[in-house]
Amino acid sequence: MPIVLPAPERWFASDNAAGAAPQVLEALREANEGHALAYGNDPWTRRAQEAFKSLFDRDVVTQFAYGGTGANVFALGCLLRPAEAVVCSRNAHVTYDETGAAERIIGTKLLEVDTVDGKVTPLGLSSVEHLLGSEHHVQPAVLTITQATEMGTLYSIDEIRSLCDLAHDMGLLVHLDGARIANAVAALGGSRATLRAMTFDAGVDVVTFGGTKCGGVFGEAVVFARPELAERSKYIRKQTTQLHSKMRFISAQYEALLQDDLFIDLGRRANTAAHSLFTRVSELSPLDLHVQPAVNSLFPRLMDPAKSTLQEWSFFWDWDVAASQVRWMTAWDTSPTDIERFVAGVRQVIAN
Amino acid sequence: MPIVLPAPERWFASDNAAGAAPQVLEALREANEGHALAYGNDPWTRRAQEAFKSLFDRDVVTQFAYGGTGANVFALGCLLRPAEAVVCSRNAHVTYDETGAAERIIGTKLLEVDTVDGKVTPLGLSSVEHLLGSEHHVQPAVLTITQATEMGTLYSIDEIRSLCDLAHDMGLLVHLDGARIANAVAALGGSRATLRAMTFDAGVDVVTFGGTKCGGVFGEAVVFARPELAERSKYIRKQTTQLHSKMRFISAQYEALLQDDLFIDLGRRANTAAHSLFTRVSELSPLDLHVQPAVNSLFPRLMDPAKSTLQEWSFFWDWDVAASQVRWMTAWDTSPTDIERFVAGVRQVIAN
Amino acid sequence: MPIVLPAPERWFASDNAAGAAPQVLEALREANEGHALAYGNDPWTRRAQEAFKSLFDRDVVTQFAYGGTGANVFALGCLLRPAEAVVCSRNAHVTYDETGAAERIIGTKLLEVDTVDGKVTPLGLSSVEHLLGSEHHVQPAVLTITQATEMGTLYSIDEIRSLCDLAHDMGLLVHLDGARIANAVAALGGSRATLRAMTFDAGVDVVTFGGTKCGGVFGEAVVFARPELAERSKYIRKQTTQLHSKMRFISAQYEALLQDDLFIDLGRRANTAAHSLFTRVSELSPLDLHVQPAVNSLFPRLMDPAKSTLQEWSFFWDWDVAASQVRWMTAWDTSPTDIERFVAGVRQVIAN
Amino acid sequence: MPIVLPAPERWFASDNAAGAAPQVLEALREANEGHALAYGNDPWTRRAQEAFKSLFDRDVVTQFAYGGTGANVFALGCLLRPAEAVVCSRNAHVTYDETGAAERIIGTKLLEVDTVDGKVTPLGLSSVEHLLGSEHHVQPAVLTITQATEMGTLYSIDEIRSLCDLAHDMGLLVHLDGARIANAVAALGGSRATLRAMTFDAGVDVVTFGGTKCGGVFGEAVVFARPELAERSKYIRKQTTQLHSKMRFISAQYEALLQDDLFIDLGRRANTAAHSLFTRVSELSPLDLHVQPAVNSLFPRLMDPAKSTLQEWSFFWDWDVAASQVRWMTAWDTSPTDIERFVAGVRQVIAN
Repeated sequence: MPIVLPAPERWFASDNAAGAAPQVLEALREANEGHALAYGNDPWTRRAQEAFKSLFDRDVVTQFAYGGTGANVFALGCLLRPAEAVVCSRNAHVTYDETGAAERIIGTKLLEVDTVDGKVTPLGLSSVEHLLGSEHHVQPAVLTITQATEMGTLYSIDEIRSLCDLAHDMGLLVHLDGARIANAVAALGGSRATLRAMTFDAGVDVVTFGGTKCGGVFGEAVVFARPELAERSKYIRKQTTQLHSKMRFISAQYEALLQDDLFIDLGRRANTAAHSLFTRVSELSPLDLHVQPAVNSLFPRLMDPAKSTLQEWSFFWDWDVAASQVRWMTAWDTSPTDIERFVAGVRQVIAN
Repeated sequence: MPIVLPAPERWFASDNAAGAAPQVLEALREANEGHALAYGNDPWTRRAQEAFKSLFDRDVVTQFAYGGTGANVFALGCLLRPAEAVVCSRNAHVTYDETGAAERIIGTKLLEVDTVDGKVTPLGLSSVEHLLGSEHHVQPAVLTITQATEMGTLYSIDEIRSLCDLAHDMGLLVHLDGARIANAVAALGGSRATLRAMTFDAGVDVVTFGGTKCGGVFGEAVVFARPELAERSKYIRKQTTQLHSKMRFISAQYEALLQDDLFIDLGRRANTAAHSLFTRVSELSPLDLHVQPAVNSLFPRLMDPAKSTLQEWSFFWDWDVAASQVRWMTAWDTSPTDIERFVAGVRQVIAN
Repeated sequence: MPIVLPAPERWFASDNAAGAAPQVLEALREANEGHALAYGNDPWTRRAQEAFKSLFDRDVVTQFAYGGTGANVFALGCLLRPAEAVVCSRNAHVTYDETGAAERIIGTKLLEVDTVDGKVTPLGLSSVEHLLGSEHHVQPAVLTITQATEMGTLYSIDEIRSLCDLAHDMGLLVHLDGARIANAVAALGGSRATLRAMTFDAGVDVVTFGGTKCGGVFGEAVVFARPELAERSKYIRKQTTQLHSKMRFISAQYEALLQDDLFIDLGRRANTAAHSLFTRVSELSPLDLHVQPAVNSLFPRLMDPAKSTLQEWSFFWDWDVAASQVRWMTAWDTSPTDIERFVAGVRQVIAN
Repeated sequence: MPIVLPAPERWFASDNAAGAAPQVLEALREANEGHALAYGNDPWTRRAQEAFKSLFDRDVVTQFAYGGTGANVFALGCLLRPAEAVVCSRNAHVTYDETGAAERIIGTKLLEVDTVDGKVTPLGLSSVEHLLGSEHHVQPAVLTITQATEMGTLYSIDEIRSLCDLAHDMGLLVHLDGARIANAVAALGGSRATLRAMTFDAGVDVVTFGGTKCGGVFGEAVVFARPELAERSKYIRKQTTQLHSKMRFISAQYEALLQDDLFIDLGRRANTAAHSLFTRVSELSPLDLHVQPAVNSLFPRLMDPAKSTLQEWSFFWDWDVAASQVRWMTAWDTSPTDIERFVAGVRQVIAN
């Protein structure tokens, strides 16, 4: 029996189903004035790069890229030499959701290690140490962690620091895939200090600083902790197809997102919406939801026909079919009314 | 002595120094309504793909990509098997201006053949025929031609047809890099019929249909003549990092560009501006300009100090330093006043 | 306290520490007569390829390669398209012991699945089925199994057939890494019928048929079940650096190894030696050896100082340091005296 | 009309159609004693590596590989970073005869520059200098030259020194592909001093030191001028599939080839045979042979039916079909009688 209630205007499918924040779109409009040299030789790019230096209070080098997979491949490609490998969690986007891009484009191997709650553990990282120095094994050279993780969890700042220390002791560099870095910053403190503590101050060497999921149209930023890490980045960005000609249109978005910490605000909105949704549905025991979401996604249990009925009414993705888990994800623009309506639909299918 | 005249508002540096056409920006704004599923499962993408079918009057498959280099790598990657190679002109963007992306990402070799006026000749193409069948040589499998070429020239429709026939006889497929396809269509007839005659009707198998240079913000389209050529394209697009999550923002731009053949109109404007500029400066004999530009670029001779003086006043790129050639390129938004002003500056430095 | 007994003449380090069988060396000598065209256009290669057809009683195509890693990369490279992946056990040589060659050279991803006793299980293989059809995931296209496995275990013929059936049902091809195929054939029946049942009759599509470990000097054979699988193999062999110019020197070795099933005899000798060693030491309870070796390796527990004392006297490799396991491996040339002497040394260090 | 004279026992097809020198085969036999650790941890490898240090009177690092294509790919792979390219002649084996191995395996681009007599010229090398520093172009990083060249010509020691100086000034390293280094050394002086002057003393950084064509069974050596260049070579060798398990069988061959400069002697024999052949046929004007061969190949003009008749009687390869050129190549084992007989056949078909 279909749901006849009014469906939410904005779905709970993904934060990349959301559009762009109005400030971002306005920045695009403003950047569309006259001519500007291509490939980043423009005032928007210079200003955005300066904004990142202020944001991190550090002499970072920021290179813009097109998308998440490309930014990861580009960032890792700057850090790796032949016969070197990347250590990651089994759930890492770079190994599971990027169709083998890293293997194909930068010829590296991804070493998946033991993972708890979507996070690499120190034990997992240590498990590859014995490979070092043997010519028969690919050499671990970079640890990549995702913050917030693909499972909607968070590394604490201490956990990141411990992993960075261990990685550095082993001779590895650390990359942080921050496709949802805005959500993570918002959840762990919500200030620039949080961001700094969570990344370069903790020892991270390179950050993929996501823009698309937190209100952008397109474009990601790769931020290097130190200029020497970025020394050959301009060549590698172009070779990995991530150099946009009309660069100002990416830079202008980031200028807007960093202005008054807009990105943190947008991340906070998505997180708050997820918390609000959790609060409203956690009492529904069939959903098997016990833990407050760390950022912006819930993974309730839901079985047919309730699941299908709800999906037809307001689409969301299956997560783990074997475990009957689905994913409900909020975005920067999820409104109280959206939540209200969605909860009403959920209650109806659960009640049946 | 610097030029004290008012400089043109829009430069003659490149068509990718231009911004986006107002219709394209408006389409972006309109596409920013509510939620839409990511990765192309959205109404804008469906409409844009249909618009391409109408445009070509053919059951084409259109896959959107981020940028020019990525679109080329993605398109070629769909056509190539291991140990196969791409035949191209020595000036081809894919071999000269893409920092080895094709070699790195799809592991192919680019076989540069004899080139006249920036164009592959039948003789050049034939010159690789003897490689076929020998295990010691990479096997030519795709011919790629650029229309309009990197040298600002055009293949005639007959030339394209002859090359396609020869390529197919040799067992090769044909890719057309249309980063400036709008200019080419405008120059060769200016109608959809021109486009069709110049591409699939002539035998081309896959087209990179450029959007960025003719008024877009970002995004390129790869158009396959037949569904079977695109069979694995969805996987290869993702693997080559060209799958945008918020796809509607690319699709909406193309919808706008194809609406009432806007792209042809924008291409025509750039071409007309170049013709107009040529007409006004061709009498200046030191510039050594004898041939009306085929599309939107002129390659005058210019030496220091005139060159530097002019560049400091209104920037443009050197082209062939050894030959003292520079490039002046118009864009869709070059105005009569821009030309007026630029010509005045040129006359002043030449006169000195 | 060092061991003062006479050490074995031949070690228990590895079967690749052994030299070549006398028949193989004699074949090399005989092949060194006069001139022969390079790259396989020679009588030895033609005869060896025919010998493989007889061996398998099937219209197989055999292509010789230089070494094990190269042969695997070459074989898999013939079966894979872009964005496709190889399913394997976590212990597979191709993923663990080849320094990322497959990722680098053929740009593929290796999907490690659950593994029992070094073997891929049907459940492990099934676990990747959900990846099929999604553009976000690399597409499983080949299952590779190693027979005998890297853990010294064997798939039964039924197990291989079941895996092949399942793989084919899922749309995958099957590659068998037979670096120690001689040992496997000897252990599972010891006849050509065994070999056929274990490989192509069970559904395997391509076999890496190892020669080096069973008495060769160098060279491996890649055997394709059907000519169409090998259609582009000559190009891919050269591109993956596996085409030897003086091919006759590989072919002649295989001619010798296949003559009167010499390879099976050599494999049997190594297996018998391992059984004999097991029989003599299994009563030594600290070694924790309970299961008769399937082929030619034992994995006893051994701790310092006993371990080091023994290794200094007659070298062998550590296997799993965390589990205090070492590996004792026999070869085609391990003699009863070697075993006698080694057992005496073992007994002495254990007794201490 | 077929030739009825007795054909030469050894052909003039290629030096890789020749067998192995007796000293090399004897070395293989001697190396087949007992067990030796795999992968180069054996006395033969240690001795051969020392022999190379003596040969070059320099602290070189020598790593053995399987074959010519693999050795080149391995050597270049040690020198290149992402987005870097190799400069070479249009005729270089690595670009023309290796089926795209370098592009596929190490993801590099080969920049073919102007070539005179099969040799890179300083002008050719300079022509890529303008690419340096631009993110749109792949960055030249290694110059590779072949000595003796694929056209049977030689760089003088001065020419090599000039190219190395220019390359180093441009920031490039230099690789020398010495598949026929024995012939080159023999032709340019015939002593160890010649070899040193021609390679590392002239500024070459890495040498592929060919063994197969000068009397080997298989195996090539990659010799690095300085240990730091070889720092990661062990990993890259394995990743590029060039690590032989039973390494002693390659090392023993090189020990034999370096013993009393045997390789120079073998190279000299081939050269002398070519000179002798030239002397005997240069008077036959239809062959259009005017220049004494620099090493071991002649490129006479020969047209059908004479050509086919001769090839059917004693095979050799076509070289440049358009120019009616064939190649006659001598080997270390070409005898006076072989030349006598071949010349008789040539005279007969020319006379007709």
